[in-house]
Amino acid sequence: MTLLDRIRIVLVATSHPGNIGSAARAMLTMGLARLTLVSPRRFPDPEAVALASGAASILERAALVATLDEALGGCVLTVGLSARPREFAGRVLTVREAAGEIVGHATRGEVALVFGSEMSGLSNADLARCTLAATIPSNPAYGSLNLAAAVQVVCYELRVAAVGGDVWRAPRFAPATADEVEALYTHATRTLTAMRFLDPRMPKRLLPRLRRLFGRAGLEKEEVNILRGILARIDERLGR
Amino acid sequence: MTLLDRIRIVLVATSHPGNIGSAARAMLTMGLARLTLVSPRRFPDPEAVALASGAASILERAALVATLDEALGGCVLTVGLSARPREFAGRVLTVREAAGEIVGHATRGEVALVFGSEMSGLSNADLARCTLAATIPSNPAYGSLNLAAAVQVVCYELRVAAVGGDVWRAPRFAPATADEVEALYTHATRTLTAMRFLDPRMPKRLLPRLRRLFGRAGLEKEEVNILRGILARIDERLGR
Repeated sequence: MTLLDRIRIVLVATSHPGNIGSAARAMLTMGLARLTLVSPRRFPDPEAVALASGAASILERAALVATLDEALGGCVLTVGLSARPREFAGRVLTVREAAGEIVGHATRGEVALVFGSEMSGLSNADLARCTLAATIPSNPAYGSLNLAAAVQVVCYELRVAAVGGDVWRAPRFAPATADEVEALYTHATRTLTAMRFLDPRMPKRLLPRLRRLFGRAGLEKEEVNILRGILARIDERLGR
Repeated sequence: MTLLDRIRIVLVATSHPGNIGSAARAMLTMGLARLTLVSPRRFPDPEAVALASGAASILERAALVATLDEALGGCVLTVGLSARPREFAGRVLTVREAAGEIVGHATRGEVALVFGSEMSGLSNADLARCTLAATIPSNPAYGSLNLAAAVQVVCYELRVAAVGGDVWRAPRFAPATADEVEALYTHATRTLTAMRFLDPRMPKRLLPRLRRLFGRAGLEKEEVNILRGILARIDERLGR
């Protein structure tokens, strides 16, 4: 049981079953699983299953209710999504701010996030049933997010707030030791001098620049070997 | 010309034209407009236009190129999206971290964000062409975001990084003044005493609790009038 299991996504009067399926997929990608549908126009529906992709189990377990009141039963916090300005008694937050409050409340009980229909969003009466309003920052000239896209952004913010932002890591290799790195610079100085690219009496900024570059990169053991291999081949060609 | 105009979204080898349309819509909702398509399977296509909804202009202006190299021409920063761990020489960031760096670089030049195909994402070779890898934090058991959903999350983070998170505001009403609020408490004390709900010799915590409640709410002028109206009606009924 994680905090995300305490959060239900409530879709009110959704017109297109495909959007319900896409919303379920969006939820599962972020680790949410509890979907409540208030009077959807068509559900269940094969189009919903098709667009849910690997998230059909969320549709199977979805709660189907007739009124928003039923959908909000038992919730300690209710948040309505709304893109457009209207009268609302509570606070209006960005989804990022709202995600923080939602995750905080989820430690103490159930939370609902309410999304209106594709065409008109939540009614004023439905929004008034919510404690907070949340809004996704968007282009003032075209703020029309697809319903499932809005669910995706909201669930993403909930995951980041609840779990944090993990990233994958590329395989790591052994770093070079200080003495290996210094031996490389010594070798490079010798070879660059032999190539007459570096004049040891007038070294200018060449070595410091090379140190800066490789220092910033953080040399690995194998990379030092590769660079010394290149230097050794140059040495060979120069007949040293 | 905003910073977002310096950022191009590059979709590589997209299979379904509907996803190209949905991605265009996702871009426009966040104020991005520059789309580059590398060898899409089907484009132009009526399905792309249908799903772009109000964002068909982005499809019309999309650049259609044969190779990723062409798509990245002139960019000072290139970022590849990747959900799965693999070998990669550069840094791997969350989309939130990456959005900050991208917007920073966009002050100095063009930036590209590269998305792979629906089935397999970016190839290792394509990702290696990018300076940074970015990843959307997701459910380790099911991280399969739809392509347009991933574009939506990324463009959302770019907008928040570039423009900030604006919210709409409900109409505001005039706050009550301190003397109006105190007159309300005086009135309430008188009426509650007359109702024998409050014993002025044993007031306990009733008034402090009411002060706490209304203080937290921040009373408006009209609300004080409504509450005093209720009290006046009670007074009347009590025959005072």
